Amino acid sequence: MKVNSIGEFALIDRIRAKVPSAGDRLLVGIGDDSAAIEPTAGCVTLAATDMLIEGVHFDLRWHDLVNLGRKSLNVNISDILVMGGVPLYALLSLAIPPSISVEALDELFTGFNEVCAEHGIILTGGDTSSSPHGLMISVALLGETGPSSIIRRSGASPGDAVFVTGTLGNSAAGLKLLQSGNRLPADSDHLFLTQRHLNPRPRRDAVTVLVAEALATSMIDISDGLSSELNHLARSSGVGMRVQANSLPSSPALKRFAESTGTSLSDLTLHGGEEYEVLFTTNPQKSAQARQLISQGKLDATEIGLVYDGSGVMLEQQDGSETALEPRGFEHFSV
Amino acid sequence: MKVNSIGEFALIDRIRAKVPSAGDRLLVGIGDDSAAIEPTAGCVTLAATDMLIEGVHFDLRWHDLVNLGRKSLNVNISDILVMGGVPLYALLSLAIPPSISVEALDELFTGFNEVCAEHGIILTGGDTSSSPHGLMISVALLGETGPSSIIRRSGASPGDAVFVTGTLGNSAAGLKLLQSGNRLPADSDHLFLTQRHLNPRPRRDAVTVLVAEALATSMIDISDGLSSELNHLARSSGVGMRVQANSLPSSPALKRFAESTGTSLSDLTLHGGEEYEVLFTTNPQKSAQARQLISQGKLDATEIGLVYDGSGVMLEQQDGSETALEPRGFEHFSV
Repeated sequence: MKVNSIGEFALIDRIRAKVPSAGDRLLVGIGDDSAAIEPTAGCVTLAATDMLIEGVHFDLRWHDLVNLGRKSLNVNISDILVMGGVPLYALLSLAIPPSISVEALDELFTGFNEVCAEHGIILTGGDTSSSPHGLMISVALLGETGPSSIIRRSGASPGDAVFVTGTLGNSAAGLKLLQSGNRLPADSDHLFLTQRHLNPRPRRDAVTVLVAEALATSMIDISDGLSSELNHLARSSGVGMRVQANSLPSSPALKRFAESTGTSLSDLTLHGGEEYEVLFTTNPQKSAQARQLISQGKLDATEIGLVYDGSGVMLEQQDGSETALEPRGFEHFSV
Repeated sequence: MKVNSIGEFALIDRIRAKVPSAGDRLLVGIGDDSAAIEPTAGCVTLAATDMLIEGVHFDLRWHDLVNLGRKSLNVNISDILVMGGVPLYALLSLAIPPSISVEALDELFTGFNEVCAEHGIILTGGDTSSSPHGLMISVALLGETGPSSIIRRSGASPGDAVFVTGTLGNSAAGLKLLQSGNRLPADSDHLFLTQRHLNPRPRRDAVTVLVAEALATSMIDISDGLSSELNHLARSSGVGMRVQANSLPSSPALKRFAESTGTSLSDLTLHGGEEYEVLFTTNPQKSAQARQLISQGKLDATEIGLVYDGSGVMLEQQDGSETALEPRGFEHFSV
């Protein structure tokens, strides 16, 4: 049986079935953005790992090495942040093909070190190997949080409101521009969209507000696409989610891109991956506070839906009609 | 400038030059077998990462997936053990080519889970991706130890005795047998040598004795080859080391292999990699105790040399003549 016949998420379930998801000192195991371990009472270590593989996650025809170094760490930072944690220590593994020069690696480290400095992260070790094919960058990141501050995918309850930070679909549009060979930043829209793909930023600003005010009952970053992440949250929490199609936030640049290229705006916002915006829920006692922070400009987020007692994710159109929103974001091994 | 013109260790130095090697809560940074972090006073987290890449570290023509799963974790366990730590939590990242079946991945997990069970390790998360080329297995492993129990590469002092566990060169001979196409375990020598390559075991038995008795002043596992690891220890500790050529332990199977194939026995024992035996030093107050444990059969190790005030590694022949022992073990990017 080929892996692509079962898909990435079924594969992860298969792995998960064989190992404990929690235990004495294991607070969160496989199936969330980071693992959470409590080696000593009150001292929670978060651990995340994410890799970037040439030909799968990036194309050296348009990804420069500085931004790749940045992205390899930023995608992991995002995983630590959305668990309610602070990133601290990184391990970096590189598989390096003969075509990569020492100068190119220096650029990669320039980007990696920039992000370390921005977040106060220390590179503590790693592994280097030659690679017979493409460049591979694998980062493991350690962080910490308090035991009562962990924000899980499984924390959403019926009645919670659903929010998303920033705007959606920009990274997917940026990738389409790069793939089309349209690489020169002809205008500010092009630059904005392609930068969202090449150099995505984790939403530390928004997550810091959410953690400080203990607003989020569940949280996940949008790496595969909103439709996939909504389904992850709903399934992990054992709830249903209803999202209003006309509430999904999109940037002016994305709207112009969709119009000028004839691309579906809702496909981009619903299924575009590698956005690293944050999807979160708040309970009824806190939802008003979240709305107030948003209206005061202190939290860059948009309310998009509601959690209900049930399962699955429903997309509600302006006319009141509803359709099931299937996960159609990026999935490895999908056919 | 090509990476292979500077070599793996110069590359690591280049990376290391840009980041702190220790700090407030960072006890050991880049350049040892594991990083050591002290998030809370008295609570030391060790972190190691090591990857196996198809075409570099293994060949699916003779590596079975069960043993690959075992080896991917065992090489990381070795890195935690030689820092004086206990392995606890693993993150597993897999890049999976289309040629790998779900059943093959199940075998890989069978091996991985066997080793988890043997050492009480919990798989806490990871990442899965498709791979356009070969299979890639990247493991990050977390462990713990006490702050005063960390055993560094830099702890050797003049007057210390130098020891190595087990016997050397078996894995390199096993690889030669596999590469020669001689894959059937024609006899017990063949099975012994090839198993040392396909399914190496970390020396938890020996390290447990060394840690319990606080015997080791410095320690490193032999992943690249004895000559490389001796030079690593000498350089990290700022000392010289003198090793007696006729003291190097070799198995009867290796001696027969060397003789029957016309391969140099000393090349195999001095430079053979992927052995995962342990090289360590003891100070003059403890060396007698180490020798006694060895003679009582409680510690499977051999005394091979002495640390002196100086630099570099000297190999002393039986006639008293000496030559510098250059690191000639496995190095990525070497020409």
